[in-house]
Amino acid sequence: MVFITRKFHFSASHRLYDPALSNEESERIYGKCSNPNGHGHNYMLEVTVAGEPDVHIGYVMDLKELKELVNSELINKVDHKNLNLDVDFMKGVIPTAENIAIQFWKQIENKINNNNRKLYSVKLFETENNSVEYRGS
Amino acid sequence: MVFITRKFHFSASHRLYDPALSNEESERIYGKCSNPNGHGHNYMLEVTVAGEPDVHIGYVMDLKELKELVNSELINKVDHKNLNLDVDFMKGVIPTAENIAIQFWKQIENKINNNNRKLYSVKLFETENNSVEYRGS
Amino acid sequence: MVFITRKFHFSASHRLYDPALSNEESERIYGKCSNPNGHGHNYMLEVTVAGEPDVHIGYVMDLKELKELVNSELINKVDHKNLNLDVDFMKGVIPTAENIAIQFWKQIENKINNNNRKLYSVKLFETENNSVEYRGS
Amino acid sequence: MVFITRKFHFSASHRLYDPALSNEESERIYGKCSNPNGHGHNYMLEVTVAGEPDVHIGYVMDLKELKELVNSELINKVDHKNLNLDVDFMKGVIPTAENIAIQFWKQIENKINNNNRKLYSVKLFETENNSVEYRGS
Amino acid sequence: MVFITRKFHFSASHRLYDPALSNEESERIYGKCSNPNGHGHNYMLEVTVAGEPDVHIGYVMDLKELKELVNSELINKVDHKNLNLDVDFMKGVIPTAENIAIQFWKQIENKINNNNRKLYSVKLFETENNSVEYRGS
Amino acid sequence: MVFITRKFHFSASHRLYDPALSNEESERIYGKCSNPNGHGHNYMLEVTVAGEPDVHIGYVMDLKELKELVNSELINKVDHKNLNLDVDFMKGVIPTAENIAIQFWKQIENKINNNNRKLYSVKLFETENNSVEYRGS
Repeated sequence: MVFITRKFHFSASHRLYDPALSNEESERIYGKCSNPNGHGHNYMLEVTVAGEPDVHIGYVMDLKELKELVNSELINKVDHKNLNLDVDFMKGVIPTAENIAIQFWKQIENKINNNNRKLYSVKLFETENNSVEYRGS
Repeated sequence: MVFITRKFHFSASHRLYDPALSNEESERIYGKCSNPNGHGHNYMLEVTVAGEPDVHIGYVMDLKELKELVNSELINKVDHKNLNLDVDFMKGVIPTAENIAIQFWKQIENKINNNNRKLYSVKLFETENNSVEYRGS
Repeated sequence: MVFITRKFHFSASHRLYDPALSNEESERIYGKCSNPNGHGHNYMLEVTVAGEPDVHIGYVMDLKELKELVNSELINKVDHKNLNLDVDFMKGVIPTAENIAIQFWKQIENKINNNNRKLYSVKLFETENNSVEYRGS
Repeated sequence: MVFITRKFHFSASHRLYDPALSNEESERIYGKCSNPNGHGHNYMLEVTVAGEPDVHIGYVMDLKELKELVNSELINKVDHKNLNLDVDFMKGVIPTAENIAIQFWKQIENKINNNNRKLYSVKLFETENNSVEYRGS
Repeated sequence: MVFITRKFHFSASHRLYDPALSNEESERIYGKCSNPNGHGHNYMLEVTVAGEPDVHIGYVMDLKELKELVNSELINKVDHKNLNLDVDFMKGVIPTAENIAIQFWKQIENKINNNNRKLYSVKLFETENNSVEYRGS
Repeated sequence: MVFITRKFHFSASHRLYDPALSNEESERIYGKCSNPNGHGHNYMLEVTVAGEPDVHIGYVMDLKELKELVNSELINKVDHKNLNLDVDFMKGVIPTAENIAIQFWKQIENKINNNNRKLYSVKLFETENNSVEYRGS
């Protein structure tokens, strides 16, 4: 079993709040992350796939293929976007790092998994200091 | 002459557009940076001060003093904020990295300069790959 | 299960030696790390907590709460300190990175664990090149 | 159980191609990585060993010993070398990152493992964005 | 005057040797960098342009334009290439970092300079530890 | 003119205090940096030399020569040492980053400068966030 990882970067804005609550209640829960006009991050994403390297080619998965898949399914949909308003698969989801990572997993799992390889981890850095990792349920 | 530098981090959202132009014209100029719902960054700021170290103490300037000054004058006003809507000294200014750096310089120059030291540079990283530096006019 | 991680930084001095041994024997074991007048590091600490995100809030644990807990229990007690002489929970412990990580785990495990989340990992970087990780016994 | 990790750096050139195939077929599989005159990388290697810290000394393994072992068994043989032509343990192996990591593991596993510690992971970064990890079969 | 900088990455192989000298003489001068089968690096390039921000747009130069120019003039010609054999503007030049930086400057200076802006610096990192900077003659 | 830079790392302890003052006065000036039992850092040092590349060899200065010179004159004398007690050229000097950089400059300037090259800058990072740079008087 070999684990291959590729990093991706995107820049997006978001606001943490619960539309069912008042602004004051959201601010009590999310602090400065609930600023009504939003804020933003340079997110860094690491996608890890596990599998056996092909005996002839020597790849678990061509990283160029992984790059194109993650760019088309995820990065192009979130880069330079507002995560509350502009992203279809985030509709109705509070964009905490935890929830973004879980939604990302759901978007790409089936497109990566086959007999020889499986999505192993989606790790999302909101800042250099804060990250979350989801390895599936 | 010794140059001392301190790094700062803040997370903010912004949108590049000219209110005097149509959305289409702004998009032609600023591309994806003009997304109407905004996007955001983890900005990294480097402030450099030049001077002679005090012969007794050995400091050009106490970095704790520099940290508190930049936090109160700049970071607390832009961190987790929308640069188009929430920051008084950015009102009427298109928040390109160039313009943010120039406004930052104006906010802190007089509070740093004295007989023994001068603000030398404000360098702002919008992403790990893109930065601007202003050293005064 | 989602894993959330926060990074912390502290600067401390230490000396690796066994008080039961002569300086020469400690130097044979620990090499330059046993310099009698000590040396120091900018340590980097990563604390990882595992759990399910709260269905309403979307957090495994508020990172602000984790930050305050680790700062008060660990960072404030070791930052700008001598690990051999100034830290109560390191008394009688040789301050190798392995032992520091284990002591850190013991200080915070009970304050983090509850029905919804558990301390998963304490990873300590002594330098950019050297690190240790403890995941509990 | 404590995991200790040390980073290593080396600079090498390689070319991805299958000698049994034509240049055109190799280019179809490996793209620009099959450039006939080769290309190169600053590889970064992380070696992780798992074990219990010695109760007297406080080390899982002296990192100086690990450094010398990995330098003599791996780094000195690949640094400033061509991985297709200059490295005995890569003969007949297509130098994908996956295959390099597996060969590295085989070279050092027996020299690290004993009653108290085991090689846990070999992680190889080909670039800052691309990495592979092997934890044994 | 504002200085804007963009980073670029490329992976290439090279060999330091003087075709007028014997292999032994080249090895005496360049050490392990003269390995006959070559070696390689992940180079990192920083290109800095100086100018006044446009009063309407707020840019010294659109970084997207700078990115496309440097990619087409430099990166696409050296990435995944052998610097001794595959790059027209390096023909007859010993590919030390100093010489690469000077050749890069010559390739892009005229395409960047105009009435409002000038190429200010080409900085090339061969590894994380080694870099050279050229600011023109 | 080309500027070449090499990075170095060392780990040392220090205490900021003035022996002519009481502990209380030193603490008022230097805060937590005056902790009586000291603290420490992983310092990062960048040494920059300016000159014309040799027309035959293509080097401003062989970086291997620069590395050996800085290691023997500086790094070997400060790595894993106490800067207040163990370093001859720091005797009687308060080890602020400013003063360390100036002393470093004095130790190596004459050994680097010749007709073709000059020491240009000594830049010292005490932490990732704090640095000082000295370019000579």
